[in-house]
Amino acid sequence: MTLDTLQFAHRFDSVSGSAIREIFKLIAKPGMISFAGGNPAKSALPDELCAQVAKEVLQRDGKAILQYGATEGYAPLLESLHAYAEDALGCPIDTVLPVTGSTQAMDLLCKALIDPGDVILVENPTFLGNMQCMKLYQAKLVPVESDENGILIDKLEEAIIKHHPKLLYTIPTFQNPTGKTLAADRRAPIAELAAKYGVVVAEDDPYRDLRYAGTPLPSIKSYDRDGWVVFLGSFSKIISPGLRVGFMAGDSRILRKCTVGKQSTDVHTSNLTQAIVDQFLRRDLLPEHIRSICASYKEQLDAMLEELASFPEGTTYTKPEGGLFIWVELPEHLNALDMLQTCVARGVAYVPGTHFFAEGGHHNTLRLNFSNSTVEQIHQGMAVIRDVIAEASK
Amino acid sequence: MTLDTLQFAHRFDSVSGSAIREIFKLIAKPGMISFAGGNPAKSALPDELCAQVAKEVLQRDGKAILQYGATEGYAPLLESLHAYAEDALGCPIDTVLPVTGSTQAMDLLCKALIDPGDVILVENPTFLGNMQCMKLYQAKLVPVESDENGILIDKLEEAIIKHHPKLLYTIPTFQNPTGKTLAADRRAPIAELAAKYGVVVAEDDPYRDLRYAGTPLPSIKSYDRDGWVVFLGSFSKIISPGLRVGFMAGDSRILRKCTVGKQSTDVHTSNLTQAIVDQFLRRDLLPEHIRSICASYKEQLDAMLEELASFPEGTTYTKPEGGLFIWVELPEHLNALDMLQTCVARGVAYVPGTHFFAEGGHHNTLRLNFSNSTVEQIHQGMAVIRDVIAEASK
Repeated sequence: MTLDTLQFAHRFDSVSGSAIREIFKLIAKPGMISFAGGNPAKSALPDELCAQVAKEVLQRDGKAILQYGATEGYAPLLESLHAYAEDALGCPIDTVLPVTGSTQAMDLLCKALIDPGDVILVENPTFLGNMQCMKLYQAKLVPVESDENGILIDKLEEAIIKHHPKLLYTIPTFQNPTGKTLAADRRAPIAELAAKYGVVVAEDDPYRDLRYAGTPLPSIKSYDRDGWVVFLGSFSKIISPGLRVGFMAGDSRILRKCTVGKQSTDVHTSNLTQAIVDQFLRRDLLPEHIRSICASYKEQLDAMLEELASFPEGTTYTKPEGGLFIWVELPEHLNALDMLQTCVARGVAYVPGTHFFAEGGHHNTLRLNFSNSTVEQIHQGMAVIRDVIAEASK
Repeated sequence: MTLDTLQFAHRFDSVSGSAIREIFKLIAKPGMISFAGGNPAKSALPDELCAQVAKEVLQRDGKAILQYGATEGYAPLLESLHAYAEDALGCPIDTVLPVTGSTQAMDLLCKALIDPGDVILVENPTFLGNMQCMKLYQAKLVPVESDENGILIDKLEEAIIKHHPKLLYTIPTFQNPTGKTLAADRRAPIAELAAKYGVVVAEDDPYRDLRYAGTPLPSIKSYDRDGWVVFLGSFSKIISPGLRVGFMAGDSRILRKCTVGKQSTDVHTSNLTQAIVDQFLRRDLLPEHIRSICASYKEQLDAMLEELASFPEGTTYTKPEGGLFIWVELPEHLNALDMLQTCVARGVAYVPGTHFFAEGGHHNTLRLNFSNSTVEQIHQGMAVIRDVIAEASK
């Protein structure tokens, strides 16, 4: 029988693969200026330090690192991570679970909670990688309306009452893809609504340390009294995405299910990468490293905003205080998906905004990343996009 | 609302967590002799070499290793792994996909193929970690009868005709938990039945290099003409389980679905651990390392078999030519689950055999691991088990 007769599982019926990861392959040629992706700058990746640390941890604890570990995490990291999480989130934390990148946190949370047809409330637009995750669990994604300060609390309550969601997925700080931050006075209400109606909140907060202006806001988790909020943390933006280490922090009843799910997902996260992250926490290497990253990302953000100021009338864009992304809305008649081909042919890439909407549409939007390009590349690349827009507007 | 009202997903209805991983925690006290688990010996873990290699790869290619990588795998490993897989399996390979331990290979294969209620044929007994994985995909596990030479081909065809399975899961070499090896003349027929009836075969073969006697047998994959066989490979037993690197090898149509599934599972396997494995392959470090592991594992196996020879009449056990496990059947009236408590109290652990059967039962069986204990510990620990059996037999 030919393999073409093979029927794949129905969870793939509406999923064909991440558009971003396909764009990555398209643009993997030398000289390309990429405003796509959410890659850290090369200069932000601590290769020398990691080389040293990797060697040290393997020399000191190599037999334990190379052996099977506990699904619950590498013991030294559990200790340093618990302290780090409580400090970062500004509240006591019941349990932390190291995971293989915070993408796995979302996967495990869906595994623990989502039956086919269950509703997940999402921001509109939202992170497309995690939308793919939710779709593979056959969840029904229902967008909740936001304004420039994030999710609208009355719309959230309406949506909860109407759709009885299992989960709310939110990226409160320097959101992907918009760069927006959830206002301080909307954070406690989200935790309260979650407890009132019995909805788990996935607070996905990988960008919180990349703040270039303004003051840090309390986590939603810090207002959580009953355990409904699960915090998803990442070291991808502040140490390295290639190591694949993130964590979940929350109530042990939820994290226990995630741990059982993780047993048969990958048994445990690599002990070596956990041990490297442990050293960054234990030796308190992050604050200085983050300061140096933020200094250059701020210049890159400013350069991109400066270029956007001369984009054609009718263009609007966010002015984030941190993170990696600017969200651009072009005049309605323009199509960022069509324009991408031309831009890529001229050596510049971005992600069309339509991919970030649960229900598609919004073809006049795009997401720009500034962290992975030099200031010079930003000036050069933005000029190309401006030209392509001008030609498309004719 | 209290979190106790939270309803977890139905996929957990019949899954409470891996019995083995719970036993691990029970026995994590100093001085315990553990015949549970499938851990490599401490001496088999190349910590000094890994420390050197980790430092070198990060110094040479650190910026790429620490950056986001392709879901399809770290480019240098893809090259060396493809060559390694073709050599190991003795056949041309269409596609290889590095994964976060071969446990993830099974998870991705189920994700790609299994809708709730789909049938997976399994050996009886079989590896319990992967049974948990299958159950979390709500598959129906149907055992196929084996004899001392592995799956019975006529029984397999009967089961295929009767149950229309999506997948056959088999561990053909030094099987977990029995140590049995599928006979040479049953390997082509399995590939043929798979193609005849359109059943995907997951050939899980992590122990094939740990051979202490006899000659290597061709993989089932090497008889596969139409792409129905997916090979699951692991470096856990021959380099390190703590690194979490394994691979899948097979037809690109199946592996493409697994890759899309992996995008939202963990984006990609850690580039650092992939780069370390790449060096083992590229520098051809495995053959000598495996020779040295096998030399000591053979002594450990022999010591355990020697002890088993003096177990009470009515005890039968396998005499594997390789791998990590011996399977023991005690006289019918003995209960290995009950005896475990006594053994653990006296400092010796094993895994009761009942956990490895899809339908439970078989309380007089147990699995013994010999790789993670010294010859001295084996003599000492087996004497304890023999005593406990003698007391239970009274």
